[in-house]
Amino acid sequence: MSLSGAGKLGAPTCSFDPRRHAWYPPTVDTSTPLAQGHLMMNNTLTGSKQAFVPVDGRTVRWYTCGPTVYDSSHVGHARTYLSLDIMRRIMTDYFHYNVLYHVNITDIDDKIIMRARQNVLIENLIDDATKNGKLTLEEVKAMIGAAVVEASEKAEKKRQQIEEALTEATEKQDSRSRIEQEGLLDQQKLKVSNLASEKARIDAALKDSVISQDAKQLILVSKLVLADKLDAEKGHLVTDHSVFIKHARYYEKEFMEDMKALGIREPDVLTRVTEYMPQIIVFIEKIVQRNMAYESNGSVYLSLDAFQAAGHNYRKLSPAAAGTETSAAELAESEGALSSGSEKRNPNDFALWKSSKPGEPAWDSPWGPGRPGWHIECSAVASDILGENLDIHSGGEDLKFPHHDNELAQSEACLGACCGGGRSDECHQWVNYFTHTGHLHIEGLKMSKSLKNFVTIREALEKNSPRLLRILFLMQGWDQPMNYSQQTTDDARSKETTFKAFFRQVEALARGDYLADEVGWRMGEHDRELSHALLAAQKKVHESLLDNFNTKEAMLALLQVISQANVYLRIPDVKPAVLTLKSIAIYVTQILKVFGVVRGNDDFGFEMSGGDDAGGSSAVGPMIDALVSFRTKIRDEALSAVKNSKDDPTSAAKAIQAILETCDALRDEILPTVGIRLEDRPEGTLWNREDPATMMKELEEKKAREAELRKGKIEKKLVAKEKELAKLRDSLQVPDQMFRTDEFKEWDEMGIPTVNADGTPVGAGQIKKKKKAMEKQMKMYEELMSKADGNPQALLHATEAEVTKLQEELAALSI
Amino acid sequence: MSLSGAGKLGAPTCSFDPRRHAWYPPTVDTSTPLAQGHLMMNNTLTGSKQAFVPVDGRTVRWYTCGPTVYDSSHVGHARTYLSLDIMRRIMTDYFHYNVLYHVNITDIDDKIIMRARQNVLIENLIDDATKNGKLTLEEVKAMIGAAVVEASEKAEKKRQQIEEALTEATEKQDSRSRIEQEGLLDQQKLKVSNLASEKARIDAALKDSVISQDAKQLILVSKLVLADKLDAEKGHLVTDHSVFIKHARYYEKEFMEDMKALGIREPDVLTRVTEYMPQIIVFIEKIVQRNMAYESNGSVYLSLDAFQAAGHNYRKLSPAAAGTETSAAELAESEGALSSGSEKRNPNDFALWKSSKPGEPAWDSPWGPGRPGWHIECSAVASDILGENLDIHSGGEDLKFPHHDNELAQSEACLGACCGGGRSDECHQWVNYFTHTGHLHIEGLKMSKSLKNFVTIREALEKNSPRLLRILFLMQGWDQPMNYSQQTTDDARSKETTFKAFFRQVEALARGDYLADEVGWRMGEHDRELSHALLAAQKKVHESLLDNFNTKEAMLALLQVISQANVYLRIPDVKPAVLTLKSIAIYVTQILKVFGVVRGNDDFGFEMSGGDDAGGSSAVGPMIDALVSFRTKIRDEALSAVKNSKDDPTSAAKAIQAILETCDALRDEILPTVGIRLEDRPEGTLWNREDPATMMKELEEKKAREAELRKGKIEKKLVAKEKELAKLRDSLQVPDQMFRTDEFKEWDEMGIPTVNADGTPVGAGQIKKKKKAMEKQMKMYEELMSKADGNPQALLHATEAEVTKLQEELAALSI
Repeated sequence: MSLSGAGKLGAPTCSFDPRRHAWYPPTVDTSTPLAQGHLMMNNTLTGSKQAFVPVDGRTVRWYTCGPTVYDSSHVGHARTYLSLDIMRRIMTDYFHYNVLYHVNITDIDDKIIMRARQNVLIENLIDDATKNGKLTLEEVKAMIGAAVVEASEKAEKKRQQIEEALTEATEKQDSRSRIEQEGLLDQQKLKVSNLASEKARIDAALKDSVISQDAKQLILVSKLVLADKLDAEKGHLVTDHSVFIKHARYYEKEFMEDMKALGIREPDVLTRVTEYMPQIIVFIEKIVQRNMAYESNGSVYLSLDAFQAAGHNYRKLSPAAAGTETSAAELAESEGALSSGSEKRNPNDFALWKSSKPGEPAWDSPWGPGRPGWHIECSAVASDILGENLDIHSGGEDLKFPHHDNELAQSEACLGACCGGGRSDECHQWVNYFTHTGHLHIEGLKMSKSLKNFVTIREALEKNSPRLLRILFLMQGWDQPMNYSQQTTDDARSKETTFKAFFRQVEALARGDYLADEVGWRMGEHDRELSHALLAAQKKVHESLLDNFNTKEAMLALLQVISQANVYLRIPDVKPAVLTLKSIAIYVTQILKVFGVVRGNDDFGFEMSGGDDAGGSSAVGPMIDALVSFRTKIRDEALSAVKNSKDDPTSAAKAIQAILETCDALRDEILPTVGIRLEDRPEGTLWNREDPATMMKELEEKKAREAELRKGKIEKKLVAKEKELAKLRDSLQVPDQMFRTDEFKEWDEMGIPTVNADGTPVGAGQIKKKKKAMEKQMKMYEELMSKADGNPQALLHATEAEVTKLQEELAALSI
Repeated sequence: MSLSGAGKLGAPTCSFDPRRHAWYPPTVDTSTPLAQGHLMMNNTLTGSKQAFVPVDGRTVRWYTCGPTVYDSSHVGHARTYLSLDIMRRIMTDYFHYNVLYHVNITDIDDKIIMRARQNVLIENLIDDATKNGKLTLEEVKAMIGAAVVEASEKAEKKRQQIEEALTEATEKQDSRSRIEQEGLLDQQKLKVSNLASEKARIDAALKDSVISQDAKQLILVSKLVLADKLDAEKGHLVTDHSVFIKHARYYEKEFMEDMKALGIREPDVLTRVTEYMPQIIVFIEKIVQRNMAYESNGSVYLSLDAFQAAGHNYRKLSPAAAGTETSAAELAESEGALSSGSEKRNPNDFALWKSSKPGEPAWDSPWGPGRPGWHIECSAVASDILGENLDIHSGGEDLKFPHHDNELAQSEACLGACCGGGRSDECHQWVNYFTHTGHLHIEGLKMSKSLKNFVTIREALEKNSPRLLRILFLMQGWDQPMNYSQQTTDDARSKETTFKAFFRQVEALARGDYLADEVGWRMGEHDRELSHALLAAQKKVHESLLDNFNTKEAMLALLQVISQANVYLRIPDVKPAVLTLKSIAIYVTQILKVFGVVRGNDDFGFEMSGGDDAGGSSAVGPMIDALVSFRTKIRDEALSAVKNSKDDPTSAAKAIQAILETCDALRDEILPTVGIRLEDRPEGTLWNREDPATMMKELEEKKAREAELRKGKIEKKLVAKEKELAKLRDSLQVPDQMFRTDEFKEWDEMGIPTVNADGTPVGAGQIKKKKKAMEKQMKMYEELMSKADGNPQALLHATEAEVTKLQEELAALSI
């Protein structure tokens, strides 16, 4: 439309006098959703991009499945939560939607139960084999052997069962069942093969001369197979529920710390399943009342037949996957390792409530003691917090089926006419936009423990800064498979360097009095081009963000204008238009702030700069800490010197020495950790900022060089001292005893040998030589005795001690 | 529309199988421009709010008239540029328009020429009356008298002329002319009255016993009337053009500094008229070619008759003002004090190019040496930078007519079919949105020098922080008259305090491990209410900003959610939902950043925090400076102590003393200026942040208290010393001379009087008394002589000197 449709917009269209108040409304292109300024979003529910329209004006009710906290989080988790963090920041900080972002932590689940109690059982076993002495080493070995055999037999048996089912399906020409069984078979074959390598590892340990004698080591090596066996036999004996809660809280805390380390903004609402039992039970009761779920043996299942008979559509998110090879396996896994599932009416029905076996954590319910199924918590908790029609639900690609499809089914089954299109009494649309972050690959391969390319978030952060990881993520589509590799991290690093170099250059130009110059307020051809380059970049960024959060294109637009600025700065004889360059730097920073690459958008409170008081800003605190603690040290030194000056006239001089050392330590040890480099020059001390990582590295190198020097010195000393020791040992020989060996038979009164052992007389030449040697030894001996104050053994021991000390010093430096 | 119109938006509408991929597009209210998300803007061209539509997608070409730099900028300038800064920040930082913001400085103008050369002439006059001795005091007085008379006569004559014209118009029943002359008359009457008070001031000075003898003082007092006289007589002799440029550059720099102090973002493009002469001349030539301007006597005027005959509309912005009382006066003033204007075809024609009289700055042109008229520069420079169709043109309310109306006329006269509606060959719309910031009143009154309520920006900033001024401005409509008063500043201060207190409280809560608690991850009723309060505030802020930049409503929405949070925090037994409170604090900060109240949005570069290197962030620098210079002082003290220790064994102790003083100075003098309070406690030194203004005030109070104490001590000493001096003076009396006065005629050998002056003998009782007194004096005299080592005068002088010194010390403390 042109703004002739401007009647709606309050513009005068007809009733104006062209000679007065004449105003021609500008025209605008609205031929495409992008031109209309609509945020387009890839919606898994339609498999395509849709214009994003919140239910309630600009408020966005957004639910995200948090992790099941049974183990450390890995870069796959980073993939999901960092990508969503970027999307959320764009929605709130760029488009200014009023986002209510809710994350729910799964803190009760079969995986948590299994992992927690297996840990307990393994610990108990180790105690039995060591402290308690209840088990001998041979018994441990026997147990491990049995566990390996059992596990192999079980896996093999399962494989055979699947093969039989596959044969049957093939004979019956039931292609859906055949495809499903093929999937299960592939998975089972992988399990069998993994077990084989596990067995090889254990066999090697049993043959190792050291490990095979150490019960604890053996148990740890065989932990995986032992844990399964122990859990099956004794799992029900672990009845202390604090074990499970403690396990979950540990990994929950680790997860929150990892998220913080990645710079992921905290959710607006964070919930835990275990704090939502009443709401979950009510939610399930409603589904039962609506006859779309049934109780069986203390568990409750959603009836897919009843659900579909009521006009609902199951598997909205992954219709293509229905009846494919992975689907049955995924469904089985999602039901949990502790489920039997034999009570289901339809094998694809899924658990809403699981009856707890003895020892398993349990909550009271109308169906007896039990715990929620995996999927129901999200439906119940999200509905409680965000209401009955969500704008966005998100999670990783791998949660699509069965988790999210089942969530949709149970939510539609529970909620009334209130949600969705509202076109019938039934709820047909619990979620308006379902977004799934793409898979993460490591060097092009799927991440898995068996491929040994499993990377935890902490490992990733040891190698790369959170800023670098974020740049890496920004350069890939949130809904596409992404590659975490040397090449992609190198690429991110080079982009980071480009930003840094540009900021530094503009900062240097902006430091001068750039407006004072007499000439140069004009916009020349090159200045104009640069100014237009910024406008083009801004346009591109805006369009890219509207287009399904295309951060890669937005980043490229920022890098493009920086590249144009760099070209501009190299044009000869052009006085740089600092205002334009600053506009570019500020704009680039603002967008990087939106993306979370620059952290300014997460702070709150009034700023320090401009001489004002602060709120939550974080940059200045460490600096003040350094300043205050430096002052405290100096002051303490000086005060104690004053105090001691009566008793010790040298106290002031000593304090001065200590103060100088503190000054050096501030430069060499403290300020580098906050990224400040001091240079003491004759004309004064300069400071500038530097990447702390670089500085710490330099510092380590310097320390290493100094250690090398010290090592050299100590080695020299050691050589000298060892020589001294050798001489000392030689000197200890009592002269008249020195030839009284088996070599000879007779000696003169001085102890000079006269007759050899074989009875032959010692030759005159020999005697002369021996006499000379004895004289030398006498001299040495006398010297030693006088030096040692008559206690040569004490001197020997002291020298030996000195040698040992030097050797130890050397060893310490070599570590 | 519902998103049934979503076909356009890429949503599937018809071709979907309701049992698969079923997706119901959400519906959206678009019944009003606000609901449609259109930014509405008050447009002076229509006198109403219009939906803002840029010519080119999201790029906004925005021109603002900068100041004429002939004097210091006042809060009226702040009104315009601060209000526009807020609007610009909202457009760029909130709505993410790609704004190209252009400000042009008028650095050549009659006001600059007059002011600069008058300054020179006054300085010369002072030199003549003082250093050069060319003028006697009497000659100066005569000159002042003549100037006052001349000015009064001239003003009176002009008044009479206007009255005659008014009478004529009334007789002719020419109501338009009558109204115009009435306006001119009012203005002239004000001038006459101002001159009368000026005369009174000068008369008082001439009667003052001191000032009347000081030629320089007299000249300065009479500066205004003298300057006019001198300029008329000798203005043409000031031919050094660097005088004008220097004057302009001085106030331009001051203006830029004022803008920076107010936290106003630099423009993207900043130009000066004097750097745009070629473009201005070409622009005028085009209008002449199009026959809408004519040359006359070396000047060029826009012909309003020709302009209107070509179908154009003059006075689009102020049609209501045409023919009102103020309009003719405004037109006259805008033509400049140095114009004759007698060459005009139509009295309302206005100058595009002004022929320069001898001495006036001039540039070569096709019409001879001259300079641009006031209005033309904006048209020419803005068109050169921003192209031929501006999205926004802004300026203060007082520029509407004639400046902006004339700009529109000359731009339409010059530019071809390229701009505006493009509905004819003519340009009918150079500017799409004309925005005028409202007037500023001081305590409800118009600001003027004659009302003595004139406030410069520097004066305003002495009383109030830039943050406070900004809050004050945010609380008033940009296009409404605003009031700068005690009440409005107090109100802003109280709002600032509310923000501060809230940030501090959330900061304190966020410091704890608020996610570790076992209970409290649920959203209770109160938490939910608070969360919804934030959503409501966000909605309100968004709607308010869309609604003609209604920052007042937006600020109230922020304060409202803070108030709700404060209520929430006082509810008994509610564990605060820290995540929600943090979300509120971060959101409030983000909006305050957009408004420029928190400065984060102006920085560029990577942040320091998180251990990364920095760009232009400003908060940390002063801190590092303090740290480095503290260390340097300590180090220098210590190093010089080491160096001197050979010659001076006490050097270390002295250094320790100096170091302790440096430690105290850091606490008491340096850190307060950057807003850090140190407290040395037995258990260690604490630091926290504080408003530096508050700290500096405290520090001054502390110094004052200390000075008071010191004053008391000195006063005590002085009293004692004065007593000593009095006694000393008494003691100086030589005892045997003490009664040798006119009172007596005869004395005994001791000097005791025996006969009174009247011949009567001195009574025995009197003689006894006098003897006693003499004995006392002898004792005092002897004491003095012994104390003074025989030189009592030296002691007297020394004591006098001590008294004087104490008196001086006291006087110094009392300043």
